Amino acid sequence: MAEFDITEHPHRRYNALTGEWLLVSPHRSKRPWQGQQETTEPEQRPAYDSTCYLCPGNTRAGGAVNPPYTGTFVFDNDFAALTADAPVGTVNVGGLLRAEAESGVGRVICFSPRHNLTLPEMDEAAIRGVVDVWVEQFRELGARPDINYVQIFENKGQVMGCSNPHPHGQIWAQRTVPGEPAKETVQQAAYFQEHGRSLLTDYLTLELQEQQRVVLENAHWVALVPYWAVWPFETLVLPRRHVTDITQLSDEEKDAFASILQQLTIRYDNLFQISFPYSAGLHQRPTDGQEHPEWHLHMHFYPPLLRSATVRKFMVGYEMLGDPQRDITPEAAAQRLRELPAVHYKQTV
Amino acid sequence: MAEFDITEHPHRRYNALTGEWLLVSPHRSKRPWQGQQETTEPEQRPAYDSTCYLCPGNTRAGGAVNPPYTGTFVFDNDFAALTADAPVGTVNVGGLLRAEAESGVGRVICFSPRHNLTLPEMDEAAIRGVVDVWVEQFRELGARPDINYVQIFENKGQVMGCSNPHPHGQIWAQRTVPGEPAKETVQQAAYFQEHGRSLLTDYLTLELQEQQRVVLENAHWVALVPYWAVWPFETLVLPRRHVTDITQLSDEEKDAFASILQQLTIRYDNLFQISFPYSAGLHQRPTDGQEHPEWHLHMHFYPPLLRSATVRKFMVGYEMLGDPQRDITPEAAAQRLRELPAVHYKQTV
Ligand SMILES: O=P(O)(O)O[C@H]1O[C@H](CO)[C@@H](O)[C@H](O)[C@H]1O
Ligand SMILES: O=P(O)(O)O[C@H]1O[C@H](CO)[C@@H](O)[C@H](O)[C@H]1O
Repeated sequence: MAEFDITEHPHRRYNALTGEWLLVSPHRSKRPWQGQQETTEPEQRPAYDSTCYLCPGNTRAGGAVNPPYTGTFVFDNDFAALTADAPVGTVNVGGLLRAEAESGVGRVICFSPRHNLTLPEMDEAAIRGVVDVWVEQFRELGARPDINYVQIFENKGQVMGCSNPHPHGQIWAQRTVPGEPAKETVQQAAYFQEHGRSLLTDYLTLELQEQQRVVLENAHWVALVPYWAVWPFETLVLPRRHVTDITQLSDEEKDAFASILQQLTIRYDNLFQISFPYSAGLHQRPTDGQEHPEWHLHMHFYPPLLRSATVRKFMVGYEMLGDPQRDITPEAAAQRLRELPAVHYKQTV
Repeated sequence: MAEFDITEHPHRRYNALTGEWLLVSPHRSKRPWQGQQETTEPEQRPAYDSTCYLCPGNTRAGGAVNPPYTGTFVFDNDFAALTADAPVGTVNVGGLLRAEAESGVGRVICFSPRHNLTLPEMDEAAIRGVVDVWVEQFRELGARPDINYVQIFENKGQVMGCSNPHPHGQIWAQRTVPGEPAKETVQQAAYFQEHGRSLLTDYLTLELQEQQRVVLENAHWVALVPYWAVWPFETLVLPRRHVTDITQLSDEEKDAFASILQQLTIRYDNLFQISFPYSAGLHQRPTDGQEHPEWHLHMHFYPPLLRSATVRKFMVGYEMLGDPQRDITPEAAAQRLRELPAVHYKQTV
């Protein structure tokens, strides 16, 4: 029998950040695809769209009018999933029917006044402006006694449920710590307790030694396909220095963050020569009044495309009922991303 | 301040089966939708399609020829994610890079020789034939020493990654117990230990008392929208009697299972008057040689559509990074399903 080789043989991998497993089937990437084709979005959009509820000066669905903003613009979501004034209460019937009221804040962050830009097409200074908004928002919301977790994220592309192509992200900030950061807290706390260093510090050291899954590096940040990546071209963006949240970054680290975000999203767009869809977001310490020295700030990118601009990975039957599953290995995905040009495809034609 | 009302105010609910939480935002169902529209699939298909790799007598991608089957037909998946002869091995670098070889079996189950039928359009006897195949497959695969979990499921519709409309399901059976049934084992075992009854026995008693989330009942089965449903019209199909796997069902219970599956999937098709997409599957005791008296057989249906045949729920940014989130309440979803006609819409025109 052949020797076990994770680049060739079916296996499970452990997600050290969440404590969960996934199934990897490298041999399966050859199967033919006769299923759903995604529709690609138009490449050309105007810089200003009078029907867009995020463009400067336009009226939103809720009736408010956007200011004539020139950089970033933040407002309370007109259809927020969380509200600050929600009534308080709990339900508990036999430990089996359990609910509790939840309160919080939903905000929208416009990245640019220009309707037709996305992060990879913005310049570094403009992306740094977005990073600065994330810092301010985390500082402001995290300081509120009724907010114990601040989730900053972006859904990009229709296939990721984004209903407006104007470049924007969101913040959902709330009273409780959601499941994903809660799992990461447990794993990071156990590691920190045992080793006295953050889990992601030691993980990064290993990745930099192996280099196989590293996509990009600069003086302060590394972008890599994590060992436990679920989505085909999933990446994890990590500061080299152990900080628990974005407010602790130096000016230089914030510039370098903007730079690696630009470089990574350019690679993504270049992969299939389209505006690459993903959901992405920051994971940071809970703002529950505890110090959380175990937490190591990071950003996840979860992009759905697998083979081309029109063929995505589906997380369906087996994945919903069993475990997440992937075909191409994280090592192969990292290599493809690494080898892509550093210049955006739209700028080379 | 108003009193907390789970049908109106934002809240979290606890999934007693997995121990996880989700966010419910009932007030949010009014937000306008300008995002992706799903394409609906053609309503008319031939009973036999010469290009379909599942139709009787046709040649599959792997070269094998299907027999001229007249009922159900099971074969080993030509592009299985799991293989029985995979090399054995593990990786462990500092507890952070961890992998282990995985082995197993992938099979395809054709539900009918007719290319243009789906479960809701098949008669009860034919669906009973599918139930019998599930029983045989679970018995055969579960008895193998190299198989400790048998996952039987169906992906229906292109939006659920199904690449062939010919009615079929799959089995992925493997050496380890995947994450979802593993979580359900922990929760059910803790409950059984404490109460001496299965968690789902007591849960069903509560649901039958409250009736709000019950969609369908017959002598042996109940279909309901679980208190902790994540997908808009998610359902849980439960036998009234506590059995740990499908092989323990009596003949009468198997007939009644076929009947409630037909009735439920007819309601689903009638909801938006289309062939309703979903991923569905059985959860049963692990086949790891232990008795698992805590396990209570059940079937999950996870359908993605939210508002219409073309508008789905997206589990994206917040859901991937935080917690699952839903807009319409499980109670409202159950009521809509309950009020739908019992006759398939195609048969009434
Ligand atoms: O096996 P199929 O039908 O080719 O593939 C489908 O179901 C599998 C199991 O849920 C998924 O891993 C695939 O992403 C999906 O396209
Ligand atoms: O808030 P949006 O952009 O309207 O909505 C999008 O992102 C939300 C947060 O991930 C999801 O709950 C929605 O399903 C998705 O369509």
